[in-house]
Amino acid sequence: MTINAPAQTVLSSYAQGKWQAPDAPENIAQVLDANTGELVTQVSSDGIDIAGMVDYARTVGQGSLGELTTHERALKIKELAQYLNERKEDLYKVSFRTGATQRDHYIDTDGGISTLFVFSSKGRREMPNSNVIIDGKTEVLSRDGSFLGTHIYQRIPGVAVQINAFNFPIWGFLEKFAPSFIAGVPTIVKPATSTGYVTEAVVRMMLESSILPEGSLQLLSGSARDLLDHLDYRDHVAFTGSLSTANTLRSHDSVLNGGVRFTAEADSLNAAILGPDATEGTEEFDAFVKAVFVEMTAKAGQKCTAIRRVIVPEAIKEPFITALANRLTEKITVGISDAEGTTMGPLASKDQQHDVAKATQQLIDAGGKVRLGGPDQVDQYDETGAFFPPTILEFDDANTHAVHNVEAFGPVTSVIGYDGTPAEAVRLAALGGGSLVATVTSNDEAYVAETTLGISAHHGRLHVLNRDTAKTSTGHGSPVAHLVHGGPGRAGGGEELGGVRAVQHYMQRSAVQGSPDMLTAITGVWHQGAKANTVTRQMVDEGTGVHPFRKPLDTLRIGDQFASELRHVSLQEILDFAEETGDKFYAHTDEEAAMANPFFPRRVAHGYLLVSWAAGLFVDAAPGPVLANYGLENLTFITPVTYDDSIRVTLTAKQITPRVTDEYGEVRWDAVLHNQNDEIVATYDVLTLVTKTWPEQYAK
Amino acid sequence: MTINAPAQTVLSSYAQGKWQAPDAPENIAQVLDANTGELVTQVSSDGIDIAGMVDYARTVGQGSLGELTTHERALKIKELAQYLNERKEDLYKVSFRTGATQRDHYIDTDGGISTLFVFSSKGRREMPNSNVIIDGKTEVLSRDGSFLGTHIYQRIPGVAVQINAFNFPIWGFLEKFAPSFIAGVPTIVKPATSTGYVTEAVVRMMLESSILPEGSLQLLSGSARDLLDHLDYRDHVAFTGSLSTANTLRSHDSVLNGGVRFTAEADSLNAAILGPDATEGTEEFDAFVKAVFVEMTAKAGQKCTAIRRVIVPEAIKEPFITALANRLTEKITVGISDAEGTTMGPLASKDQQHDVAKATQQLIDAGGKVRLGGPDQVDQYDETGAFFPPTILEFDDANTHAVHNVEAFGPVTSVIGYDGTPAEAVRLAALGGGSLVATVTSNDEAYVAETTLGISAHHGRLHVLNRDTAKTSTGHGSPVAHLVHGGPGRAGGGEELGGVRAVQHYMQRSAVQGSPDMLTAITGVWHQGAKANTVTRQMVDEGTGVHPFRKPLDTLRIGDQFASELRHVSLQEILDFAEETGDKFYAHTDEEAAMANPFFPRRVAHGYLLVSWAAGLFVDAAPGPVLANYGLENLTFITPVTYDDSIRVTLTAKQITPRVTDEYGEVRWDAVLHNQNDEIVATYDVLTLVTKTWPEQYAK
Repeated sequence: MTINAPAQTVLSSYAQGKWQAPDAPENIAQVLDANTGELVTQVSSDGIDIAGMVDYARTVGQGSLGELTTHERALKIKELAQYLNERKEDLYKVSFRTGATQRDHYIDTDGGISTLFVFSSKGRREMPNSNVIIDGKTEVLSRDGSFLGTHIYQRIPGVAVQINAFNFPIWGFLEKFAPSFIAGVPTIVKPATSTGYVTEAVVRMMLESSILPEGSLQLLSGSARDLLDHLDYRDHVAFTGSLSTANTLRSHDSVLNGGVRFTAEADSLNAAILGPDATEGTEEFDAFVKAVFVEMTAKAGQKCTAIRRVIVPEAIKEPFITALANRLTEKITVGISDAEGTTMGPLASKDQQHDVAKATQQLIDAGGKVRLGGPDQVDQYDETGAFFPPTILEFDDANTHAVHNVEAFGPVTSVIGYDGTPAEAVRLAALGGGSLVATVTSNDEAYVAETTLGISAHHGRLHVLNRDTAKTSTGHGSPVAHLVHGGPGRAGGGEELGGVRAVQHYMQRSAVQGSPDMLTAITGVWHQGAKANTVTRQMVDEGTGVHPFRKPLDTLRIGDQFASELRHVSLQEILDFAEETGDKFYAHTDEEAAMANPFFPRRVAHGYLLVSWAAGLFVDAAPGPVLANYGLENLTFITPVTYDDSIRVTLTAKQITPRVTDEYGEVRWDAVLHNQNDEIVATYDVLTLVTKTWPEQYAK
Repeated sequence: MTINAPAQTVLSSYAQGKWQAPDAPENIAQVLDANTGELVTQVSSDGIDIAGMVDYARTVGQGSLGELTTHERALKIKELAQYLNERKEDLYKVSFRTGATQRDHYIDTDGGISTLFVFSSKGRREMPNSNVIIDGKTEVLSRDGSFLGTHIYQRIPGVAVQINAFNFPIWGFLEKFAPSFIAGVPTIVKPATSTGYVTEAVVRMMLESSILPEGSLQLLSGSARDLLDHLDYRDHVAFTGSLSTANTLRSHDSVLNGGVRFTAEADSLNAAILGPDATEGTEEFDAFVKAVFVEMTAKAGQKCTAIRRVIVPEAIKEPFITALANRLTEKITVGISDAEGTTMGPLASKDQQHDVAKATQQLIDAGGKVRLGGPDQVDQYDETGAFFPPTILEFDDANTHAVHNVEAFGPVTSVIGYDGTPAEAVRLAALGGGSLVATVTSNDEAYVAETTLGISAHHGRLHVLNRDTAKTSTGHGSPVAHLVHGGPGRAGGGEELGGVRAVQHYMQRSAVQGSPDMLTAITGVWHQGAKANTVTRQMVDEGTGVHPFRKPLDTLRIGDQFASELRHVSLQEILDFAEETGDKFYAHTDEEAAMANPFFPRRVAHGYLLVSWAAGLFVDAAPGPVLANYGLENLTFITPVTYDDSIRVTLTAKQITPRVTDEYGEVRWDAVLHNQNDEIVATYDVLTLVTKTWPEQYAK
């Protein structure tokens, strides 16, 4: 395969099902190798039919993705991850030219692929295999239960547009692609110009895999031009980049008046805070130095999540700076990203080098003392590359405005001191005006709790580091697919990742009100009060009804129901159960004490006895399509059952989730226990595994 | 009490703990009685220290609300509701002047109060009694379980600003106030000028009740002036009103660059769709006519949720218009809102009357045939009042642009025809460009499911009406506190209400990563792997440890743990249990069939037997502070248990929720069953009620 366009040509876009590049573009950008300044490719979106791309996504892309269920789409994400994983060496090769080292590739390439794996797994384990996702519990809105309300999520009927930053051309694309794809929303990705050839390479691989449904992914290489003009409230734009660009986009008429769903992950002056207990020599001190070291040097500090502000107790400030400077001096060799011995590559471009030098100088002018590196040291490197030295700035005044407002997007960090109190740590961290992530390092639980809770509303993620997590932490700077990524204020106010939460970002939540039957028809999940196909033990015995446990997934239907006869409860049985299980809790065994209890009339049956009997009442014992009861949810005991009461159970197929990779699936049954007065004794969901097929002759 | 300022004076604001009104304002608006044109009051915010109000909320308001827990705040909302409920006649009296009839008061006044009741109840039943709300499940991020992740919600550290519409001066205020108050965020409410005297009256009552903590509520009567200038990412603005004003606010620098959390509920051309089965004479037809009738005339059609577009099958169009016109003619008497016999009052002001007449004329000019009412009929009413007749417009062309884009905010509705297919109904409804709510009326489940799912991503709420819900539906136009309210696109893109969801709108969600001990310290909820205070049966028997069941809430602590000995499992016990409960499922009773099952090695113990035994292993039987086991959650069976295995259980106090109104509270216990090889057999949460205190002499 051709990994990327050869130099001197124009990088392709993939629009409306075709690779295309302008022949003689008017607007064109040259992209240079970050290490050597050699021309890598040229980029232009001139002549690409952007309105056509949006329309293609909304029609062809929505159409083909809509033919698949959530689990089918999630499975494709896994297949893609496997496909890319086998070819990642090719992606490393392209990525070196951006200045990324092999260690950086593990973040961008491997990190991107592992994000796909997590989303695939969560999509199949934590979402129903359906295109209607229920949110929360049913609300009973009328006394008689005839009018209910619930909430559903459905995919938005438009396109997911990504406008990405230069620093993670693979991860930044895949972390947004996976959830939108699982939601069923087609993507148009517009990578940053300076590293878009890496995104082009991975998009090319994904398309070559033939795993993707038609129209589900398009690539716009070069300027976004009039892209936003063509979007409206059906569409979603996820932007990563500077706050100023975010706000320009946010002011676009399509966002303000057209209702485009816009989310941004922007600037962030992330803090790392050291507790007063973490003095030199403690494991926390060492872990903290290492964390700051990693965040400064991974991707040459070009991470939105990198640590820009280090907040340490005054007494530990000097030992910390010394230890950090020593570690950087010992371990970091700046050089060509794929050269032997290089531990930190250049910045992504000469423009970036210039911006970082300028921001660093601003920090110095504001009072920052250079304790290592600094813009003056840039001269030591080959001037064709975009190199920048690891730089530590020390500030005497922790309130210095620039510390909390100027982001040098490279291997640069500011160190300030504080008095060691949580209140002051919180105050300083909040000066960042909203950040993506903060690390709190301490082994003092009270300090950690107070500081973390104090700063949490200013942050999207809090990372607590101590001796217990020094080895196992996934790191300050690494968003994980399981947890949300984003932050308030300066960080853009957006939210990405977070497992299923991210899939829901590409969906509309709507309330639905109606009768139990209508809610069942709309959601595909049986609602209490809806019509049921009821069989009794007598009907089963007489052959006039099929027990729902005799139905495999291909014949079982929502609403298939078994209703048991009443079973009498005797005192002796309660006492026997107490004896056999050892559960002699006074409410079951001591009449006087039970009567003194505010909730019980006299001795009552164990809740566990009632659910055990219920199983005995509803079960169909012979081998059949039901393979196992793997769990039980939301069991609530409502009316106590005392001796000489009777109970009966009604079991109804509520939700059916065939697995895409197995010969069985999950069936959730609604179970309700009543007493002889038709009062509800208990409600719960029984979770079973049921085979997809079962020979018909065994059906009864 | 003084319900509202007498005419000729200036309406007060309540700022920084004091009622105040400008003496000689430069900017002043006169507010007239909607019925009679008499002067009601004058409004001006000149001279009010708005920056001071914001600062007061952030400091005093946040401080006093932060001293209460979620449940304590939720209980205050109930007390407020009771207080207002006893005084609602006074509120009715003031509200008549806005043109609202007694029937309208039930929506605004009673609806507002009932919203408080629902939020109070949900806040206490569905949220923990804490200021840290956990979202979702714990994520295990390292193989050894030493590094975990979870999500927490904490209140935003700023102020909740309401900028409200004129149509619901009480409900519109209370529906936003309740969730922000429960979240712990202080409110500044800025009502619309034309009906702000009603909001002033209810705010005055609430303050007189002495229920509110200091700084938790301030009122800005009159222009918002520079209010937004003083807000940033810590603050939340909830706007209700026109889309154009929403977008002006959304373009404010504090929103674009300052990160203010901004949500809008704006214009909406809500549709009501009739299915082809709902012909004249059906219960659905009658229910549909009645629903449109109600939405046109309640609040004289001045509801964001009113039905503006009626989409009916061509064949049913004429019967529908005739039936609707007849009902309106028979039942509606337009007049002074508190006069005997009036069934519909005037619009809220002469300005509104003018706007509605203008929009209606636009619709007529676009092809609307007046089938009832119309702007020409305004002359029949006394010109000092803002009266407008119920107006039906019929369109031959269902695609008429104005039908889907011009909102006449009064008793006006457009009727269009369609071919009766779900696809066409969906296409027409979507032309509204995003709406708050749509009604689908049909008794055909397939039609309802297809139509509802087709339009759901364009709507915030879907209301299904059929014969089963005709009597019990809460109505097309009534947002209920349990369900979300808002909608995409033209409707503003915001979301309000929805129970706990609304409380979370005033909170920041953050991911937290760290060791089990640190997550426990931060959240106050015990996490698997965190340190525990373990006692065994032997320790209890020897008197060297106290069983956690002997501890009332005042001594029970998160992490208090009971660890049982192993219990052997015999085949005979399994068979006996099968016999006694009737649960003879083959996996427990038929060796050959069990071995053929993909999940079991041979006959296994019932899951219900295992949890029953677990209770026997962990229980402390004597009367004590544990009152009842009221439920069980998230039971998952992981490793099957066969005969000659053994099991043991570990029970740990995970979450403690004392009730604010009872002498007991909920304790959630983490239960884990292991087998003799330390494999996990099952995990679940046991839910118990435990008293707050218990005489110490009974502790052992």
